[in-house]
Amino acid sequence: MRRLALAFVFALALSLPAVAAEVTVLTAARIHTGEPGAAPVEAMAWDGEGRILATGGVRELLARYPGAERIDAAGRTVIPGLIDAHAHLMGLGYALMRADLAGADSKAEILARLKAFEAELPKGAWLLGRGWDQNRWPDKAFPTAADLDAAFPERPVWLERVDGHAGWGNSAALRAAGRDFSGDWQVDGGRILRENGQATGVFVDAAMALIEAVIPPPDDAFREEAFERALAESAKYGLTGVHDMGVSLADLALYRRFADSGRLTLRVNAYADGDSHALTALCAFGPLAHPSGRLRMRGVKLYADGALGSRGAALLADYHDEHGHRGLLVTAPEALEAAMRKARDCGVQVATHAIGDRGNRLVLDLYQKLLGERASTDHRWRIEHAQVVAVEDIPRFAALGVLASMQPTHATSDMPWAGDRLGPQRLAGAYAWRRFLDAGVRMPFGSDFPVESVDPRLGLYAAVTRQDLEGRPPGGWLPDQKLGFAEALHGFTAAAAHASFDEQTLGTLAPGKRADFVILDADPFELPATDLPRNAVRSTWVDGRPVYRAP
Amino acid sequence: MRRLALAFVFALALSLPAVAAEVTVLTAARIHTGEPGAAPVEAMAWDGEGRILATGGVRELLARYPGAERIDAAGRTVIPGLIDAHAHLMGLGYALMRADLAGADSKAEILARLKAFEAELPKGAWLLGRGWDQNRWPDKAFPTAADLDAAFPERPVWLERVDGHAGWGNSAALRAAGRDFSGDWQVDGGRILRENGQATGVFVDAAMALIEAVIPPPDDAFREEAFERALAESAKYGLTGVHDMGVSLADLALYRRFADSGRLTLRVNAYADGDSHALTALCAFGPLAHPSGRLRMRGVKLYADGALGSRGAALLADYHDEHGHRGLLVTAPEALEAAMRKARDCGVQVATHAIGDRGNRLVLDLYQKLLGERASTDHRWRIEHAQVVAVEDIPRFAALGVLASMQPTHATSDMPWAGDRLGPQRLAGAYAWRRFLDAGVRMPFGSDFPVESVDPRLGLYAAVTRQDLEGRPPGGWLPDQKLGFAEALHGFTAAAAHASFDEQTLGTLAPGKRADFVILDADPFELPATDLPRNAVRSTWVDGRPVYRAP
Repeated sequence: MRRLALAFVFALALSLPAVAAEVTVLTAARIHTGEPGAAPVEAMAWDGEGRILATGGVRELLARYPGAERIDAAGRTVIPGLIDAHAHLMGLGYALMRADLAGADSKAEILARLKAFEAELPKGAWLLGRGWDQNRWPDKAFPTAADLDAAFPERPVWLERVDGHAGWGNSAALRAAGRDFSGDWQVDGGRILRENGQATGVFVDAAMALIEAVIPPPDDAFREEAFERALAESAKYGLTGVHDMGVSLADLALYRRFADSGRLTLRVNAYADGDSHALTALCAFGPLAHPSGRLRMRGVKLYADGALGSRGAALLADYHDEHGHRGLLVTAPEALEAAMRKARDCGVQVATHAIGDRGNRLVLDLYQKLLGERASTDHRWRIEHAQVVAVEDIPRFAALGVLASMQPTHATSDMPWAGDRLGPQRLAGAYAWRRFLDAGVRMPFGSDFPVESVDPRLGLYAAVTRQDLEGRPPGGWLPDQKLGFAEALHGFTAAAAHASFDEQTLGTLAPGKRADFVILDADPFELPATDLPRNAVRSTWVDGRPVYRAP
Repeated sequence: MRRLALAFVFALALSLPAVAAEVTVLTAARIHTGEPGAAPVEAMAWDGEGRILATGGVRELLARYPGAERIDAAGRTVIPGLIDAHAHLMGLGYALMRADLAGADSKAEILARLKAFEAELPKGAWLLGRGWDQNRWPDKAFPTAADLDAAFPERPVWLERVDGHAGWGNSAALRAAGRDFSGDWQVDGGRILRENGQATGVFVDAAMALIEAVIPPPDDAFREEAFERALAESAKYGLTGVHDMGVSLADLALYRRFADSGRLTLRVNAYADGDSHALTALCAFGPLAHPSGRLRMRGVKLYADGALGSRGAALLADYHDEHGHRGLLVTAPEALEAAMRKARDCGVQVATHAIGDRGNRLVLDLYQKLLGERASTDHRWRIEHAQVVAVEDIPRFAALGVLASMQPTHATSDMPWAGDRLGPQRLAGAYAWRRFLDAGVRMPFGSDFPVESVDPRLGLYAAVTRQDLEGRPPGGWLPDQKLGFAEALHGFTAAAAHASFDEQTLGTLAPGKRADFVILDADPFELPATDLPRNAVRSTWVDGRPVYRAP
């Protein structure tokens, strides 16, 4: 009935002539529509609702919409809005609520960054930061609480080391913990650094929890601020959509408040966080499609195994660099199957984290078992990461209609040690984009931010070069798996739109679709790959309205 | 946009001529439409979708719909479908999954009832029962496990005494508990009955938990069966709708499965169970309106105080029969206010349990504070029970637009001891239906089943007589608060429909509304009140289709 009703509205909208005053015509040096086989155009028109009316030549569109508002992106290039098919918005938001101390070369610089950061903090809130590394400082010694106390006598300050294995607090933070840290006691798996029996302010590993346990959980205002920052940060790099992988009910309610009040500047396709209340709500309420078109939930994110770096990815054979160890499953297969069955029976799309070849095979086996004859239906179940896959399992993705949701920057982040973990033979199925495409597998691209940078230009660059930003290794790592720029862009646009069932409205610039696009300084199809990360984002548009403009 | 779309569909439906073959015309001795001031009619027509097309004379409607299917309820009376505005469907379902042992006059009768009940139980499931009372049996002695073992050697049996203060298990149940009950140990607040140091099978008060802790929680199949029984039981007594007061996400998902598969034979208006995941889901997903029209959630059930019988209702002055005691608030006022604010900010309707005059005043104060200027909007916030209200607070319901959701059978259940609890003066505002109506307060009626009987005829009877089924006290308890039958029926139909924002589609029989109705043996408007509880329900119809027919 609702489908029918929407069809009526759609028919009605198409039958009405667009009111000229509400039409906008954008002109640019090149507009890459992303439509298969289509040449670039120079103009695009959309209506007051942000729906694309036409793409084509400048004169043609200006003639057709004589009273239209005109925007001229002279000399610049337009591409479809970029969609990150695997990311964590609240994680990015929380990261943006912490001071970034990475690369600071002295305690003075740390203090300066903290002071600048504090200006935007609510009164009384903890000042959290991350990224300090005393090895970069002149004296290379661990810092102390006293280093922070003069600048921050009252506000608790807690700063994680760059590797996450140590925390540095000021005296206010130690006081807030509400216990006496003096003496010679320690905690299992951790260490309280002391001088003359008094805690210095640095806590290692498990001892970090002594402070972290008293950091107030983020309240509503903090969470709103974090989300707002994540939205702004995403728009800044040309993202118009994100698939948010693992969203709690409470976060979904927060997102909805933004959508209700017109503040959701990004299209968020939220996946329920595991076999949780959010999945039950999805079963009870049915798929969420916010009337604004900016917020949806129709899938669930599950976990099969761990990650490769920490040797948690489940492998079929031993780790090359750890004999007798094959990684671990983070969810028992029975529980994973039960969650998938629950999702299937509620019509919920499943997206499962699987990094190792054993993790991927397990998920393929479970998908095959649960989908059964439905494998040929339009289910669009996904495997997230699909980083290390047995070569013979790659065609199974295509046969089962399973999407391989990959993150190009994971390859270039992991390449320095991935060979150590896997040995030479298993590299054939590692980050094997070309093999997946050749096998006919759909491959939406993302970043996994904040694990990697939010900037999709880095993903595009990694996909076409398989090199780090310094151009290493020469020719790229496992270079036969490199992609062309069009293929990479497809992953961040049309393939991502397809992965969220949005290919009718998103992913390319075509009449009837949403006017979500990015204006770039230069034409990325023409640029040398090394320049891709520096190609400035001039503005980002969602529903035909700017959500970011470069200063 | 969705609202607009539905309006289109509605307009379209009205503009199409009804296909004659799909029309049904019902004729009966009398059809009480429930429309204000309307005389009874003899015929009603509805379309294939269950939407009423017309009410009127027999010849008129048969002429207008010549090819219609005809149903003749000759000599019988039709009333609008009854809606219970306050009940607990899963509670009823679970009660129906237990053997009813109330009134059994011997252990032999208990065994016979258990055997009959077992026939419908899944294999291996515990046999649960309630209602035994050894004082009714010839020997008046507590029973033993051995009394049950011959009939139930393998299946665990656990039977609660009529007052809920003792449990009687068979040996299989004691074995399932997995511990040695012999010796002379006891548990705080409870007692294990023993003979020669061996447990007899009866456990008193806190000792009941020794067995109950091992009863498996209801699995999906059990819960489905319970819900199905609750639906069938409701339909049997003429209910076409229920406001389910306190539904978890998991239960809502269960209800949805029934709605999806066309097995939801009752219109369920579910209220989220407190400040819980269901409320958060309501905030995240927005109101639930299942396409079938059978399942909705747009409100939350909160709790202010306890109940009168157990002296938990919060009173402004001491209990008449317990000096120095004024009852208790089951939710801290700050938490209650926070939950109401959360609901308000999500556009969620609030329904708060308040029984004592202090509980009611607190809720009125909070509603007034939170609604503020919105009090004049169409919020339809409710107070559930509103049993004992300071007389001067009654007009505040009307002034704030707050509904008083009352249960007539609570009055006749409580009348033997309500005067003891309250003393004579406070009775003026106790179960004061007439005073509420006179003050212009809307008053949906319900039963609170399974606390009271599911049978709405008992509620109608209690509302017009204020007597128990034996006619006591003569003339009725506090007889100036008695209602006329039309007023009572209004509470169980139109007022209940209004309380769930359904007055455009439910509550009376009028063109454009749903064909939800009940066929009764006799005309309840003509019957002496004493005969109301015996007026047989012949059939119950939802959307123009029978959901119950008397055998």
